[in-house]
Amino acid sequence: MAGNTFGTLYRLTTFGESHGEAIGGIIDGCPPGLLIDEMYIQQQLNRRRPGQSALVTPRDEKDKLIFLSGVFEGKSTGVPISFMIRNENQQPKDYDHLKDVFRPSHADYTYQQKYGHRDYRGSGRASARETIARVVGGAIATLWLKKYGITINAYVSQIGSVKLNLHNIDFNLIDSNEVRCPDNNTALQMMEEIKKNQQQGDTLGGIISCVIDGVPAGLGEPVFDKLQADLGKAMLSINAVKGFEYGSGFAGAAQKGSTQNDAMEIKNGKLFFLSNNSGGIQGGISNGAPIYFNVAFKPISSIKQKQNSITKQFTNTEISVSGRHDVCVVPRAVPIVEAMSAMVIMDFMLRQNAVK
Amino acid sequence: MAGNTFGTLYRLTTFGESHGEAIGGIIDGCPPGLLIDEMYIQQQLNRRRPGQSALVTPRDEKDKLIFLSGVFEGKSTGVPISFMIRNENQQPKDYDHLKDVFRPSHADYTYQQKYGHRDYRGSGRASARETIARVVGGAIATLWLKKYGITINAYVSQIGSVKLNLHNIDFNLIDSNEVRCPDNNTALQMMEEIKKNQQQGDTLGGIISCVIDGVPAGLGEPVFDKLQADLGKAMLSINAVKGFEYGSGFAGAAQKGSTQNDAMEIKNGKLFFLSNNSGGIQGGISNGAPIYFNVAFKPISSIKQKQNSITKQFTNTEISVSGRHDVCVVPRAVPIVEAMSAMVIMDFMLRQNAVK
Amino acid sequence: MAGNTFGTLYRLTTFGESHGEAIGGIIDGCPPGLLIDEMYIQQQLNRRRPGQSALVTPRDEKDKLIFLSGVFEGKSTGVPISFMIRNENQQPKDYDHLKDVFRPSHADYTYQQKYGHRDYRGSGRASARETIARVVGGAIATLWLKKYGITINAYVSQIGSVKLNLHNIDFNLIDSNEVRCPDNNTALQMMEEIKKNQQQGDTLGGIISCVIDGVPAGLGEPVFDKLQADLGKAMLSINAVKGFEYGSGFAGAAQKGSTQNDAMEIKNGKLFFLSNNSGGIQGGISNGAPIYFNVAFKPISSIKQKQNSITKQFTNTEISVSGRHDVCVVPRAVPIVEAMSAMVIMDFMLRQNAVK
Amino acid sequence: MAGNTFGTLYRLTTFGESHGEAIGGIIDGCPPGLLIDEMYIQQQLNRRRPGQSALVTPRDEKDKLIFLSGVFEGKSTGVPISFMIRNENQQPKDYDHLKDVFRPSHADYTYQQKYGHRDYRGSGRASARETIARVVGGAIATLWLKKYGITINAYVSQIGSVKLNLHNIDFNLIDSNEVRCPDNNTALQMMEEIKKNQQQGDTLGGIISCVIDGVPAGLGEPVFDKLQADLGKAMLSINAVKGFEYGSGFAGAAQKGSTQNDAMEIKNGKLFFLSNNSGGIQGGISNGAPIYFNVAFKPISSIKQKQNSITKQFTNTEISVSGRHDVCVVPRAVPIVEAMSAMVIMDFMLRQNAVK
Repeated sequence: MAGNTFGTLYRLTTFGESHGEAIGGIIDGCPPGLLIDEMYIQQQLNRRRPGQSALVTPRDEKDKLIFLSGVFEGKSTGVPISFMIRNENQQPKDYDHLKDVFRPSHADYTYQQKYGHRDYRGSGRASARETIARVVGGAIATLWLKKYGITINAYVSQIGSVKLNLHNIDFNLIDSNEVRCPDNNTALQMMEEIKKNQQQGDTLGGIISCVIDGVPAGLGEPVFDKLQADLGKAMLSINAVKGFEYGSGFAGAAQKGSTQNDAMEIKNGKLFFLSNNSGGIQGGISNGAPIYFNVAFKPISSIKQKQNSITKQFTNTEISVSGRHDVCVVPRAVPIVEAMSAMVIMDFMLRQNAVK
Repeated sequence: MAGNTFGTLYRLTTFGESHGEAIGGIIDGCPPGLLIDEMYIQQQLNRRRPGQSALVTPRDEKDKLIFLSGVFEGKSTGVPISFMIRNENQQPKDYDHLKDVFRPSHADYTYQQKYGHRDYRGSGRASARETIARVVGGAIATLWLKKYGITINAYVSQIGSVKLNLHNIDFNLIDSNEVRCPDNNTALQMMEEIKKNQQQGDTLGGIISCVIDGVPAGLGEPVFDKLQADLGKAMLSINAVKGFEYGSGFAGAAQKGSTQNDAMEIKNGKLFFLSNNSGGIQGGISNGAPIYFNVAFKPISSIKQKQNSITKQFTNTEISVSGRHDVCVVPRAVPIVEAMSAMVIMDFMLRQNAVK
Repeated sequence: MAGNTFGTLYRLTTFGESHGEAIGGIIDGCPPGLLIDEMYIQQQLNRRRPGQSALVTPRDEKDKLIFLSGVFEGKSTGVPISFMIRNENQQPKDYDHLKDVFRPSHADYTYQQKYGHRDYRGSGRASARETIARVVGGAIATLWLKKYGITINAYVSQIGSVKLNLHNIDFNLIDSNEVRCPDNNTALQMMEEIKKNQQQGDTLGGIISCVIDGVPAGLGEPVFDKLQADLGKAMLSINAVKGFEYGSGFAGAAQKGSTQNDAMEIKNGKLFFLSNNSGGIQGGISNGAPIYFNVAFKPISSIKQKQNSITKQFTNTEISVSGRHDVCVVPRAVPIVEAMSAMVIMDFMLRQNAVK
Repeated sequence: MAGNTFGTLYRLTTFGESHGEAIGGIIDGCPPGLLIDEMYIQQQLNRRRPGQSALVTPRDEKDKLIFLSGVFEGKSTGVPISFMIRNENQQPKDYDHLKDVFRPSHADYTYQQKYGHRDYRGSGRASARETIARVVGGAIATLWLKKYGITINAYVSQIGSVKLNLHNIDFNLIDSNEVRCPDNNTALQMMEEIKKNQQQGDTLGGIISCVIDGVPAGLGEPVFDKLQADLGKAMLSINAVKGFEYGSGFAGAAQKGSTQNDAMEIKNGKLFFLSNNSGGIQGGISNGAPIYFNVAFKPISSIKQKQNSITKQFTNTEISVSGRHDVCVVPRAVPIVEAMSAMVIMDFMLRQNAVK
């Protein structure tokens, strides 16, 4: 079973290769009557877009969103919403030299082994350009979640070895700098780190943290479709992601139960959790506290430095990947993490509605 | 959509509460003609079972496996394999005091909020006793995978603050001690740590590492059903899991592309990866190298120490959870991690078969 | 992908062979808090059961329902409801002679071709005894639908060449005779027909008609999951069914638009359809009028007369199927048609709830 | 769960309204390396297209197929194949008068009830123009099936009261006349019938018969996803279809077991069925004999005669539907029946491959 559909009730099916005609998707299951704020959606696409600063790739893809169905008089009609973004800045010849060489740690070799016949231009389907469709699906989910007071904010908390050390995050600062780190001092250090690596022809990874506020208690479908399980799958399906942890995460493994447990208290008839090591999820179901998690990204594989690799014909070769590539894609992945989160939360809202 | 089915082509649907009649499941999609080695499956159940040593809970559940369908003359017939394990050692009165109190960081509160009506006896459906059905599903998958030379080995690499520092793991040592750590010195320290916490009425978490050998290149279904995405979901659906990372994982976020990338080389016509930071997966598809990952478990929530909590009637109370509980369940979770891994790999093998 | 799960939000997964340990299933997605009236469910099982009269098979299977999970204090808890019915009256030796012979128009040959390894005892998985699990799933759905004023009544409208000619059906009469035909004169003729064929060692098919009242407008999910499409699939999945038609059905193919169309009228502010050729469904969505359809059953294949057939070894042979078989199973299939209908309607109710 | 995806392993998700930007879809699960013969696919679209003769609607939609992804160097790559057909001949003003009136037996009323907000132009999503996407999905499946020697032929066997009486069908004659009836005399009568009704401002239904040759034994997934169940669902999801029967069908209900059963015989080591009342399917699984079935279409609802109806504001009104409508769409539905059949058979081939 091919795996290009995400979600159970709010379902996004995507298509498109980096240098094909278009990238796009079909959203099936969007409730009717939702105001489709195209400007907001385009804005999210722009946040993902390269060419926003000197720090990212100089490609200017524009990524103009076109709806093909499902929106009438500015509102969703309940039938499939189809959309596409044309690949306007295609320069397929840039990639001719990659036809017969597998770039290390790219998907070149594995796609060849799996499919035999592959579109090698600009990584084809394995290109992160595919995430455009996720951003659209997530932006529409976000519009719907806003009606229920649910908000999602992701930000960069680590680039290379530079880590954010801050407990009270001001989400308004996230987009105030090019690396989307809500602390300007740390952001400056991160930008330094990026520049340094750019000169060395090297690349950097990092960590994105995400906070979801306003989720009511009761979302999640144990025992397999636990809320954290679907969030984890969503994140691990994003290009370059190597890890996911929520609440106390990996650090929680070294804690004791007496420290880890989130005591509960009633004040003025209202429930308070005295801590939130659970990350807003207990037994796979949201408990009403903020949901938060971290997503680890490896450095992208396209480096200018020379590496050992092999050809399609199984001979040894050397390769240095030139072309218009980012040093660090983590800041651009912030809207993608938000988009995937929005789709997961909306999906579980609809799933819970069904049996209420 | 309720979430008690796992997998797409090899599908396990489970049922059962801790103190109901039975725990069990239905496997739909097992190929016909597979020898169902009941002794092997029972052995995996025994590995999961409490009461194996002084370090774990004294409950002796026996967990005798009964097949109800799908096996004829010792072999699978291709139709649903149904099985159950009776809950023989039920002492529901043990749990009467929990009817109206929510234990901190348990699923008590969230189940109540989600379902309204819940079986509170011994955590009901939220009990880790549910994982019995996963072990059966995974053991049958393992039998099938063996035919293709695929083997799965999980082991404990951290309990509390005690970490395993070992690069060449001898899988034969895993079951040689009670904590399932393949280094006897580290194992002794872990057991010390557990005893210490037992005396303090506290509990411990830890990390399980898992290695899958023999997976052919080509498994995984981008862009959403990437191999790591489904492995991650599988692990995050296990009780008490807080994080998942594969290959270089979270540490990879601080690496540079030049270090992270796995160079390739042909020797004697055969492909070698000079490192395996990819953890055997590139672009969401297996590359033929060993797959490995870590799973973080929080300490279990049932501690004997007194904690602040609330009642179903939203009044404050104090609770100390007595009863037969483990100090650290991580060693018992080793066969569960293996079982979930086996089901994921088998599912992707079948998915790949379909279009070959 | 194996096909033993039915439904999308209200999901029944079934297991069991005619002469295995048990027949049963898991219902995933039943809303919590539903009163599980076991007596009502058992009653539906009894309606399906053979041995209710001289006209049907003398086997007395009892079919005692046992719940294994999901029901607590008499109500559903929202987690999987598992149930089984033991196969008590197994006489597998009755079937030894069928090990190597394929009975004409049975599933013997096709199961052998598909699975290679099969349980040949009493048709194994292909036995209509499998429908026990459907009746349980449907009875629980019916209990839920009653809360919304939805009722389902099926009856026998044809056996062999004897057809029911009646426009105003009194549903109370359905179970007043052994053939479940709501007209006692026609019922007597049907019973005559059955007796005659019994003497000849032959079997009979027939037609079941079904009426669903009280369905609100708005159920159905075009373009593929139209209400009639899922009802049709549900019926065509029942053993021996050869056709499905709803509303004007096959006769509608010979009508003209001017006759076929259901004119609409408002009287006292309420909508009335002046006819119901649509069978309560337009554009794949319920319109609030009664839903009705017909289901054609072929005569069962187990006849006492001698027939040409072949062995597993591909040699010619003759066979006459002895044993305890019905002459006409159509009356016993009435509760099965109702059960499948109930599951479809409940599923679409939940699907519509999700996005409301 | 919205219902715009068809199939389990070969999956088509469709989008588009009659007067929106485009109609199209995404095929997920097409095996890589398949030659995508665009001319053949366009030819199937042309067969579905109106304006082919005086007997059908004068609209000339052209329906030029555009691929957006998944095809590289003329072959499928294994990733999603996306395609669209622009709606070039939109005259939405034609439909302004339908904004507030529900046409009898159309989907106007039910869409309004279900979604609240609907695209009323030219029936919107409920328009049969949606079937364009099915024809593309089916044509690609047909190209794949040809490699395995499987062929599908549908033809018109009834229009209004004119029935085809022919046992040996020459499939080459199907497209030799405008009504796609493989007997020219009957075709002439059918065309007469159509002309007569055109003058009366009335419409006609009919029956399409379909034969699938070359299907190997073993396809179908009991107990719910029986081959006939999925074929039935596929057909009943097509606009205007009211019934489905396979093999002996409704007539089989009046037969006896001794007549109905298909005796088997070995000649020269090869299996022959002495009759084919089973329609090539036994126990839900193909037996290797030709599969055949009938599909009943009601006359389309758009008639020029005046009818009673109601407005969106629930007042009474009269309506006569003018515009460019067919008298009888049955001939144009022939490629749609073939397309849906092809997708079902291919899906079951892949499902069977998975476990082989």
